[in-house]
Amino acid sequence: MMPTTSYKMQNNLPDQITITDYLFHRLRQLKVKTIFGLPGEFNMPLLDKIYRIPDMRWAGNANELNAAYAADGYSRIKRLGCLVTTFGVGELSAINGVAGSFAEHVGLLHVVGMPPTSAQTKQLLLHHTLGNGDYNVFYRMANDVTCHTGLVADSDLCCMEVDKCVEMAWREQKPAYLGIPVNQVDLTVDSVRLDTPLNLESEPNNQEIENDVVKTILKKLYTCENPAIIVDACVIRHDLVEETKQFRQMTNFPTFVTPMGKGAVDESLSNFGGVFTGSLSSPSVREVVDFADFIIVIGSLLAEFSTPTFHFFYKTKNYALIHSSSVKLKNATYPDIHIKHLMQVLLSRLDTSKISCTFRNTPPINVSRPKLSGNQLLKQEWVWNELSHWFQQGDIIITEIGTSAFGINQTRFPPRTKGISQALWASSGYSVGACLGASFAAQELQEENPGDASLQHRVLLFVGDGAFQITMQEISTMIRWKLTPYIFLLNNQGYSVDRFLHHRSKASYYDVQPWHYLKFFDAFGADDYETRKIVTLGDLRDVMNDKHFCKDDKIRMLEIMLPSTDVPQVLVESWMREKEEQNKVHESPQFFETPDSVELTDATDEPTPKRSRLNDVASI
Amino acid sequence: MMPTTSYKMQNNLPDQITITDYLFHRLRQLKVKTIFGLPGEFNMPLLDKIYRIPDMRWAGNANELNAAYAADGYSRIKRLGCLVTTFGVGELSAINGVAGSFAEHVGLLHVVGMPPTSAQTKQLLLHHTLGNGDYNVFYRMANDVTCHTGLVADSDLCCMEVDKCVEMAWREQKPAYLGIPVNQVDLTVDSVRLDTPLNLESEPNNQEIENDVVKTILKKLYTCENPAIIVDACVIRHDLVEETKQFRQMTNFPTFVTPMGKGAVDESLSNFGGVFTGSLSSPSVREVVDFADFIIVIGSLLAEFSTPTFHFFYKTKNYALIHSSSVKLKNATYPDIHIKHLMQVLLSRLDTSKISCTFRNTPPINVSRPKLSGNQLLKQEWVWNELSHWFQQGDIIITEIGTSAFGINQTRFPPRTKGISQALWASSGYSVGACLGASFAAQELQEENPGDASLQHRVLLFVGDGAFQITMQEISTMIRWKLTPYIFLLNNQGYSVDRFLHHRSKASYYDVQPWHYLKFFDAFGADDYETRKIVTLGDLRDVMNDKHFCKDDKIRMLEIMLPSTDVPQVLVESWMREKEEQNKVHESPQFFETPDSVELTDATDEPTPKRSRLNDVASI
Repeated sequence: MMPTTSYKMQNNLPDQITITDYLFHRLRQLKVKTIFGLPGEFNMPLLDKIYRIPDMRWAGNANELNAAYAADGYSRIKRLGCLVTTFGVGELSAINGVAGSFAEHVGLLHVVGMPPTSAQTKQLLLHHTLGNGDYNVFYRMANDVTCHTGLVADSDLCCMEVDKCVEMAWREQKPAYLGIPVNQVDLTVDSVRLDTPLNLESEPNNQEIENDVVKTILKKLYTCENPAIIVDACVIRHDLVEETKQFRQMTNFPTFVTPMGKGAVDESLSNFGGVFTGSLSSPSVREVVDFADFIIVIGSLLAEFSTPTFHFFYKTKNYALIHSSSVKLKNATYPDIHIKHLMQVLLSRLDTSKISCTFRNTPPINVSRPKLSGNQLLKQEWVWNELSHWFQQGDIIITEIGTSAFGINQTRFPPRTKGISQALWASSGYSVGACLGASFAAQELQEENPGDASLQHRVLLFVGDGAFQITMQEISTMIRWKLTPYIFLLNNQGYSVDRFLHHRSKASYYDVQPWHYLKFFDAFGADDYETRKIVTLGDLRDVMNDKHFCKDDKIRMLEIMLPSTDVPQVLVESWMREKEEQNKVHESPQFFETPDSVELTDATDEPTPKRSRLNDVASI
Repeated sequence: MMPTTSYKMQNNLPDQITITDYLFHRLRQLKVKTIFGLPGEFNMPLLDKIYRIPDMRWAGNANELNAAYAADGYSRIKRLGCLVTTFGVGELSAINGVAGSFAEHVGLLHVVGMPPTSAQTKQLLLHHTLGNGDYNVFYRMANDVTCHTGLVADSDLCCMEVDKCVEMAWREQKPAYLGIPVNQVDLTVDSVRLDTPLNLESEPNNQEIENDVVKTILKKLYTCENPAIIVDACVIRHDLVEETKQFRQMTNFPTFVTPMGKGAVDESLSNFGGVFTGSLSSPSVREVVDFADFIIVIGSLLAEFSTPTFHFFYKTKNYALIHSSSVKLKNATYPDIHIKHLMQVLLSRLDTSKISCTFRNTPPINVSRPKLSGNQLLKQEWVWNELSHWFQQGDIIITEIGTSAFGINQTRFPPRTKGISQALWASSGYSVGACLGASFAAQELQEENPGDASLQHRVLLFVGDGAFQITMQEISTMIRWKLTPYIFLLNNQGYSVDRFLHHRSKASYYDVQPWHYLKFFDAFGADDYETRKIVTLGDLRDVMNDKHFCKDDKIRMLEIMLPSTDVPQVLVESWMREKEEQNKVHESPQFFETPDSVELTDATDEPTPKRSRLNDVASI
């Protein structure tokens, strides 16, 4: 990652540079080249510096929350994103996005342009303050959603502070907050410090504990009869895709991904078992995972969490949960064990000849295409099945929480596909911002590696109309930069998952104003774009078969018209199952209400969802 | 405000109602009839209740930040606004708007649908959490930007808690936060409690202190030679327009408003002196205010604050600052003195025969219209002068921070005009949301008082293109509800005030993507609207003279094309003055950089701003 010759000399830097130049050079060393955010009173002198750093660009977002989402999406591809806002109004507008990065383990540096130190000391009442002289209130709030908060305070320590923020965000894969008072922007520091590489490696693990953990895991590995590997989000965040691949090859255990881990493993290999989504998993997945006598979860984000649509948990407690910086084996927790070191030791000691279980093929996963005539109106399920066959190697696939987050799990990713979904924090509208960030990152990867086809990525966004409305102006930023993502807008007239789950399914608060979505490109000033409205299965097949459409040479939007009460098949199945079980055991009421009645009146020619279909079509 | 007969009987309520019904009935008693926000996992059962309350409606905003701005704008007309969001993602998206209400003294009830109590106790990992089992983190954050935080916890105390939140928000004119766990939504309470009026009055002041303060103020009043009344924001927020009017009539002192107080007094009366904007004030205003031997500031928000464009302060320290709940007389502060009681006592004891100063007419304020041919391209200054003559009695005029916030000060408000501007918190994009809220409020005032022409209000929004992009989807909500504001979009290709103030005036971060603003109405699905592009002075005059255009029977947008480096004349003048003074005294550098060069190349036929014009045209 670090250049071996002097960075200072290579870049012909003067002996003294400003701390802000220093900061942006540090980011550049990590290949962070697009900075997200908005200009504001206290950050402008800081933004001026960006233009002096080679290859660096200021994205200029439409609003701060979108900018935070974009920096998060960028980071999920390049491991670190940077967001610049102004004091008070700017940083608070972004804080929900930063909290999302915190919850989901995404490396982010949030730089905030602050009022001058002297004004803070004197408690001058500037604007963007609460009018009570409290300058620390926003910094305090940031504490709860960052792994580190720093301040550029004096020339002696400021380089250390900048390094610390960047290193923490990178290593911990969480947001760090760096405040720069506007009068400190030009503090001079020695540029030679840039020649000392950042400390990006975590400390080596305590050998005794690490040995213990590895020994216990190996023992289980060698003796288990029905094992499963489950690959979760932190494999992607903490750069463990290669180690995970090796581990899977060596053990040949059936391998599954969580919704947030989707994209971390090659789904075309024979021991891929599908997506484990807890209570929403397909029978073939549950057959293996729920009855496993040993589960090793690599890059585990959470062992358990609940949403109104599903409960994510491991039935067996006979598992090894390898979190990013701790391990849980059955009931024992081992803190301060870093995953990267642990996985490397595990791989080096693994003796495959000692594995006793025999590999049984996981059922083959086929995403079947509906054999129906082209003039059928569309259904969620068919859309996902068709799309699954259209995905290409290397695609970056971003799914909004909502119907898309469920639909995507029934598709099969080609090799090198990267998935982005904010499943835990689940902030509606996230995906539009994330798509911008991912598009910048994809463009940079391509530029950094010209001719390397393995680093070519199309960017595909799946978003419902409700979520789209929340953050839609970021499409304008994509247009401004001539980025070329595909936007699949699933138009189901409002918040369909919520409508499905909540008993008042006709409540008008699920509706949104019906927009003419395809007209926004013109209004945003785009001159090179393609839009299509997809109403029937035939329309969808036509566009999927169009060779021109496959090449991401311009920004494109498909508006896919779907019935307002149609949701992906897994949700319907799961809800039917839950209802049956409830009827059987007469349990006490659940936390979350399930619908009193599901109305699929305007949906399809198959009014009653059939259980049997689950195995045929939606099996992953 | 409270009905005298039983509310319960009038509304035919059952003996037991849910706490959520109770809450919304309480709001209805205060004529809060539109609830802003978005649906989300933990607030849906709560939203269902809204539909059961007569006359109440759920606005259904496009995103949470916009919703917070809308609730704030609504409150500035009706004294209280209500915002409903969901836990975590929803409330954090809105927090910048809530902080703005806190800074600017705007009454707001923020209701948050929370996870079930049992999940909180068990620290279950639900989504919308940070994944660390900390359920109090958002509640903690809210503490810093609210006057009160409450939680619906048990049936015995929950009515008291709801009342407390509503009362605090109303009385303090600040946000209050009310968390309702999703399992508590249906807690039953006695509806008869609704017959007890809310306690909306502040405690009577301590008589001794109040006497002291009144005596001191009266003494100053009777003896001063060059007094000035300055009317600030809290006159509007704390319902003191009538008392202020009487005070002004009785004393006949020259009366000024602050930018945030604009709209609180009748500007057509002869002792109206103009807008006091601190260092940006016109010479005629400064002549009176800066040399006054006694200033009484009614409804003072802050005595002093600084923005990059102006410094707001009172030169003389011989003032009485009447804040909402304290008074400052010279160096002494008297806490816990409520403004409403104080003003009433002051008025009752004021003996006008003892006033010694003789009234000198303030210079007449004429907003002159430029005498230029119609084919001139537009300038900021001309726009404001033309518009000043188009304003009608009762207009609600909302100005975005940016060029509009300065331009508006050179207009004269007709009687009963209400001004909305977020001058202190200054969050870009605020005005679009506020315009939605104000439009709902205006519609309700009209419906509540049919035939009363004094409660007819047109709603006028002035917003620059940069700020518009931040929150523009809220236009869709206006369309959905068939609201009919005028949107004056000042298109100056980006962030002009910032561009003007910061020395790198050509930096590309001031630019925004050029949109076709007039095309959004169609894209948002509007069917009854009018849009016009205004390029020349003649275009502007034509539309101002169009009788159809004057009637607010549909939503309208004027896109007014302005040069990108054109800013209102007061800013240019002020900056010239500052520069001259700096050159004279060779002061140490200021906090805020002033531009090295102002580029007005593409601006006008008068390249050098002439000081003399200030007195002729932009004198208020």
